[in-house]
Amino acid sequence: MGWRARLLMLDGLAPVIDDAGMLVWGTLADCDEDADLVFLGMMDEKPCFAAIPDEGATGPSYANPQIWAAIQALAPPDLALYGGARSLVDWHARHRFCARCGSPTKLAKGGWQRDCAACEAQHFPRTDPVTIMLVTHGEGEDRKLLLGRQPRFPPRAFSALAGFVEPGESIEEAVAREVLEEAGIAVRDVTYIASQPWPFPSQLMIGCHSHADEDALTIDETELEEARWFSQNEVQAAMEAGRDGNGPFAPPPPAAIANVLLRWWLDQGK
Amino acid sequence: MGWRARLLMLDGLAPVIDDAGMLVWGTLADCDEDADLVFLGMMDEKPCFAAIPDEGATGPSYANPQIWAAIQALAPPDLALYGGARSLVDWHARHRFCARCGSPTKLAKGGWQRDCAACEAQHFPRTDPVTIMLVTHGEGEDRKLLLGRQPRFPPRAFSALAGFVEPGESIEEAVAREVLEEAGIAVRDVTYIASQPWPFPSQLMIGCHSHADEDALTIDETELEEARWFSQNEVQAAMEAGRDGNGPFAPPPPAAIANVLLRWWLDQGK
Repeated sequence: MGWRARLLMLDGLAPVIDDAGMLVWGTLADCDEDADLVFLGMMDEKPCFAAIPDEGATGPSYANPQIWAAIQALAPPDLALYGGARSLVDWHARHRFCARCGSPTKLAKGGWQRDCAACEAQHFPRTDPVTIMLVTHGEGEDRKLLLGRQPRFPPRAFSALAGFVEPGESIEEAVAREVLEEAGIAVRDVTYIASQPWPFPSQLMIGCHSHADEDALTIDETELEEARWFSQNEVQAAMEAGRDGNGPFAPPPPAAIANVLLRWWLDQGK
Repeated sequence: MGWRARLLMLDGLAPVIDDAGMLVWGTLADCDEDADLVFLGMMDEKPCFAAIPDEGATGPSYANPQIWAAIQALAPPDLALYGGARSLVDWHARHRFCARCGSPTKLAKGGWQRDCAACEAQHFPRTDPVTIMLVTHGEGEDRKLLLGRQPRFPPRAFSALAGFVEPGESIEEAVAREVLEEAGIAVRDVTYIASQPWPFPSQLMIGCHSHADEDALTIDETELEEARWFSQNEVQAAMEAGRDGNGPFAPPPPAAIANVLLRWWLDQGK
C-alpha cells in the first residue's frame, strides 16, 4: 500500500498547513519505518494515516495561540479530520502501557485499540463528555447571560461555563452541578442545543441552555477568575466587534461551540 | 472519622440489597484497614465511601440478569448512588498502573484521581459517551421504528441501536455513522431526547431520534443478530405487554434509557 497511502503531516500534535490553508499530506516514506500508524479512513480511494509522535513531542493538551491560528485557517472538513487524528495520536502517545497490569501495550485495529499481551486487556481511545452551558436570568429584552473567564483565557475574554460529566450523572445533572459549583446558583429547564468534538485532548462538547431564578453569584475562584451577567445588548455588541474588537468583552472564537451557543442565544431574542 | 463514616456494601461490583430493596451500608470496620476508599459524597451529614475490590473480584462489565434484578429493585436515588459508585470503583480496580509509563499509581483526591509518582501523570475516571438512537421511517400512523437485537440479548428482546461516540465526532455525526454501519441506511434530522448514566462500566447514554427516507436494511451481522422495522401498533403492544409478556417483542427494561425512548416515540404518535 506504500505508494498509494497518504500520511497526515504533524509537527508534534500541531497541524502542518500550506499557504492555501490546507493540511499538508506526505507519503509513508515521510515517517520512520517502524513508526506506529493510525488509520484515519479512506480519502480519494487512498488510505490515510497519521504517525504517533514520540513521548514528549506532543506539547500542551489545550489549545494555545498557535493552534488557535491554525484552527481558524482550516476549512471545516480539514479541521474535523485534523481534530480526530490529533485526539487519536495523542491518546496513543500517552497510553503506551496497560493501566491494568503495567506492561507495554501494542497498537491494534489500525490504531482504534491497544492490546496488552501480558494480561490480555484491550484499551480503547478515550473521549470525555464535557457540558458547556448558557445560563439565562430574566425574560425578553431584560434577560441576561452568565459568562465566566478562566485564568488562562486571553485578556477580556469571557465564555460559557463548562465542566466534565462525572460518572453517575446525566447531561442535565452535570449542567446543574457545574453551575452550582462554579457560580453558586441553581438552574432549571436544562435543554440541549448542539455538540462538537474538541481535540484538546479529546472531548465531546455538549452545549446546553438553562434558566436561573436567582442572580446573586458565588464564584469558585479556583475555577474562574471572574463570572458576571451580560445584557443582550452587551452580548450582541461583543459578537459584532469580534475577538479582536472593542466590544464589552472578547467573545469565544468562531470555531468554538461557545460561539455557536452565543449566536443561538442572540437568535432566541429576535 | 471512623465511627461516623458509612461504607457502601458491595459484593464484587454488585450491590448488596436488603429485604426492603434498599442498599446496605456498613462502617469502615467492614473493610480492610488498608483498603483504598472512594469518597461518594455526604449523606445525612455523614461521609460515604466505597472500597475498591480486588482485581478479579469485579465480574462482567455489562449488566447480567442478577444485576438487572437488583437494578429493578432499587429506588431511583439508590440506583443513582450505586451506579456512580460502581463506575468509580470499577475504574480504580482496572487502572492501578500508569498508562503513560507503566508504574503503579496511587488513589488521590478521595478517589476522583490517580497519581503516578514516577512520571507525575494524573489520571481521571473515564466516562464514555454512547449514542442510542431511534430511527423512524414514514409519517403519522404508518410510521415504523427500527430496532435491533444483539447476540447477548435475552430471547425476543429488541432495543434501540447504540454505539460509542468516536474521537472527532459530534453526537449527530455519531448517530448517523452508527445507523449506517449497523443497518446500512442514511438518517437525517438527528435530535436529542434524553440522557442517562449507565454504570456498565461507565457510560453516558445519549438518546436521540432520527429519520430515514429509505427502509431497505443491510445489517452488520458482527454487531446485530437481527434488525427490523416495527409498526406503531407493534411497539405499543410490546410496551403494554412488558418484558415478560407476550407482545410482538420483549421491550427494554424500565430502568434503561431505551425504554424512555420507546415511550417518547409512542407519545409523539398521540
